[in-house]
Amino acid sequence: MPGLITLLTDFGDDDGYVAAMKGVILERNPSATIVDITHHIPPQDIPAAAFILSAAYPYYPQGAIHVTVVDPGVGTQRHALLLRTPEALFLAPDNGVLAYVLDAYGVVATGNVQLQSPHGPPPTLPARVTPPLEAWSITRKELFRGTVSQTFHGRDIFAPVAAALSKGLSPEEVGPRVEQVEIFPLLRPHKDTKGNIFGAVLHVDRFGNLITNIQDQHIPSGEVRLHIAGRSILGLSSSYTAGGELLAIVGSSGYVEIAARNGSAAQKLGVGRGTQLMVQVN
Amino acid sequence: MPGLITLLTDFGDDDGYVAAMKGVILERNPSATIVDITHHIPPQDIPAAAFILSAAYPYYPQGAIHVTVVDPGVGTQRHALLLRTPEALFLAPDNGVLAYVLDAYGVVATGNVQLQSPHGPPPTLPARVTPPLEAWSITRKELFRGTVSQTFHGRDIFAPVAAALSKGLSPEEVGPRVEQVEIFPLLRPHKDTKGNIFGAVLHVDRFGNLITNIQDQHIPSGEVRLHIAGRSILGLSSSYTAGGELLAIVGSSGYVEIAARNGSAAQKLGVGRGTQLMVQVN
Amino acid sequence: MPGLITLLTDFGDDDGYVAAMKGVILERNPSATIVDITHHIPPQDIPAAAFILSAAYPYYPQGAIHVTVVDPGVGTQRHALLLRTPEALFLAPDNGVLAYVLDAYGVVATGNVQLQSPHGPPPTLPARVTPPLEAWSITRKELFRGTVSQTFHGRDIFAPVAAALSKGLSPEEVGPRVEQVEIFPLLRPHKDTKGNIFGAVLHVDRFGNLITNIQDQHIPSGEVRLHIAGRSILGLSSSYTAGGELLAIVGSSGYVEIAARNGSAAQKLGVGRGTQLMVQVN
Repeated sequence: MPGLITLLTDFGDDDGYVAAMKGVILERNPSATIVDITHHIPPQDIPAAAFILSAAYPYYPQGAIHVTVVDPGVGTQRHALLLRTPEALFLAPDNGVLAYVLDAYGVVATGNVQLQSPHGPPPTLPARVTPPLEAWSITRKELFRGTVSQTFHGRDIFAPVAAALSKGLSPEEVGPRVEQVEIFPLLRPHKDTKGNIFGAVLHVDRFGNLITNIQDQHIPSGEVRLHIAGRSILGLSSSYTAGGELLAIVGSSGYVEIAARNGSAAQKLGVGRGTQLMVQVN
Repeated sequence: MPGLITLLTDFGDDDGYVAAMKGVILERNPSATIVDITHHIPPQDIPAAAFILSAAYPYYPQGAIHVTVVDPGVGTQRHALLLRTPEALFLAPDNGVLAYVLDAYGVVATGNVQLQSPHGPPPTLPARVTPPLEAWSITRKELFRGTVSQTFHGRDIFAPVAAALSKGLSPEEVGPRVEQVEIFPLLRPHKDTKGNIFGAVLHVDRFGNLITNIQDQHIPSGEVRLHIAGRSILGLSSSYTAGGELLAIVGSSGYVEIAARNGSAAQKLGVGRGTQLMVQVN
Repeated sequence: MPGLITLLTDFGDDDGYVAAMKGVILERNPSATIVDITHHIPPQDIPAAAFILSAAYPYYPQGAIHVTVVDPGVGTQRHALLLRTPEALFLAPDNGVLAYVLDAYGVVATGNVQLQSPHGPPPTLPARVTPPLEAWSITRKELFRGTVSQTFHGRDIFAPVAAALSKGLSPEEVGPRVEQVEIFPLLRPHKDTKGNIFGAVLHVDRFGNLITNIQDQHIPSGEVRLHIAGRSILGLSSSYTAGGELLAIVGSSGYVEIAARNGSAAQKLGVGRGTQLMVQVN
């Protein structure tokens, strides 16, 4: 068991931060396989990190160790968290960044908080971890680097603990169990009485495609019309080149995307994350 | 045989797309070595991907598996292609992105199409695959992920098939042989009756160096003068610091490059891909 | 011993340059583990590369091979250098890029040269290598690729030699010992008679944090006040969220950083590398 560790951070590629984490891991487990999910999360953007994690981790093999470090609260009293699902281990600050992972197992927060906060991440709310999930607070100092800096727990806590887990350390040994974790309320689509669906853009990808929170299965069969930013789109396309200048398509994670033929829909419409859309049925 | 797989896409580093492909590969072949060539090809820029592939693949060991996914036609009827050369396997959409690989074996398209199309990739033309090359259309669904999305064949088709090949699957098992593949006409230099050479810029690299399609061996010995964008350069330099503010040098792939001392030649001249140049002899 | 090789360059991610180096390494040592430190050093910025290297290499295991290629003088007579410390091997052009590594062992240059030169890297000065360090000039052509280009020694010299070393080649076999290497004078903080400390910004990281050359241990206990760009900051914070809009904190490498709460200090202050600051004591 060589150990597969993924890294997802907002550290960028320009500094030596990610490389320092990898050095710490490889010193402890030279045969670990380390994969970058991305390090380009906008600084401290917890919802963006949560979304990208959810788009990548499902494709990893059983037993993978996913380390997510987007951590505006580094150095404060927030927990360092280890979450075990039936499929994988997740290490992250306890700040909501595992919201979609938890959501996939029915762990939800209540509240009415905006996903898209103009100034930093949305407030997080407590949620109760329930089986088959288990969570621990990573506190056992013998597992950490000798000196733990105030500003870089990715290197000093998450990396060495991930390496230890990849070598077979039991999750129980990282610290005490916790029953509650932080989560932020996910933006969910809703329907009106006629069955029209109201959703929002969760993510804008590199191509300028607008990935929404409306899933394939939400949409009834028959003709639909999508409305976004004053434009309307008739029906779902079967490829990025089928359809008009602006088109809707079920993307690779099962969400409806708005795309522009040979261009960026985000740019064309002048919209972004948080923009609302409606799927009109009849 | 652990299996060496390279990835070249236009997916960028910001989303989880590349990471999803890697997860799919590692689930099927945990000991695969995966190397990124680049994921920063401008969206849907087939000629750019073809060029970068040609600059990297020759340095890989025998048996490497090169996966190129720049795929404006994903979800349409275009083939998913497997090409075998004596040195390597190439997986890519059948859209011309293997043009330079095929060209290295004498497979060429005819026609008179511009390399540099202002709106998307140039039209592709059919070309006949001839030995020692062989090509297959990747159609055997048992090799794919269980559900194939309309928009992400990199993850659902190319990644699992590359993983299977890295574990020893024979190319014959991916689908039927094809005799014809798509290719785009490469911009080639030509000479006038006096021996002057007319070429074009194929690529602008990170340093702003203009990499042309004129090769070392095209240039006769003796003094030459290069003309580009209204400027002229006398002779070839032996290093980026030898020569004037603007200089010409034979670059690392054997092509003549135009470079600026301590700066970007592209910026200094205000030119880019497709710009023509002349090498004037005596 | 599989061999761990790190790469640090100014090649960027867009071209095939880094991938070519990796192909050359993997052809020679298929089981090498290759880690990217960064490839986003500003073109030819030797001090930036030297700093980033110093922020990453200490976290790598004993025996790691660190290849740094920021090489404005490629193709000139500058040495290709192999430096051995008790912990690691370093391959780099002999242009000062190992300045911090050497400094950690007390190898220093004298002189009064600015770190921050507006036009390219600062001049380098000779420094004498002393035990426990040893250095060699990489000259043995049988170790190189068959053809060495004038412009890409990363691929043609550093990559194959690193691969050979990762397979157990002795440093003595790369070429003759050298007693002198290039180095640039590092900006060091100094104190006035009252004990006030005068330092400078060494690096601006992705978050806009200003990393200075003033270390934790330079600062006396008791209340201090930092002055930078006409602003003053009282005391050191314990986290990025503790303190005012602008704060000072001891960062992950032990250097004092100036940070902005939820933003970029560099942007807020309009300053960058080379900016001076003062730590006023009592």
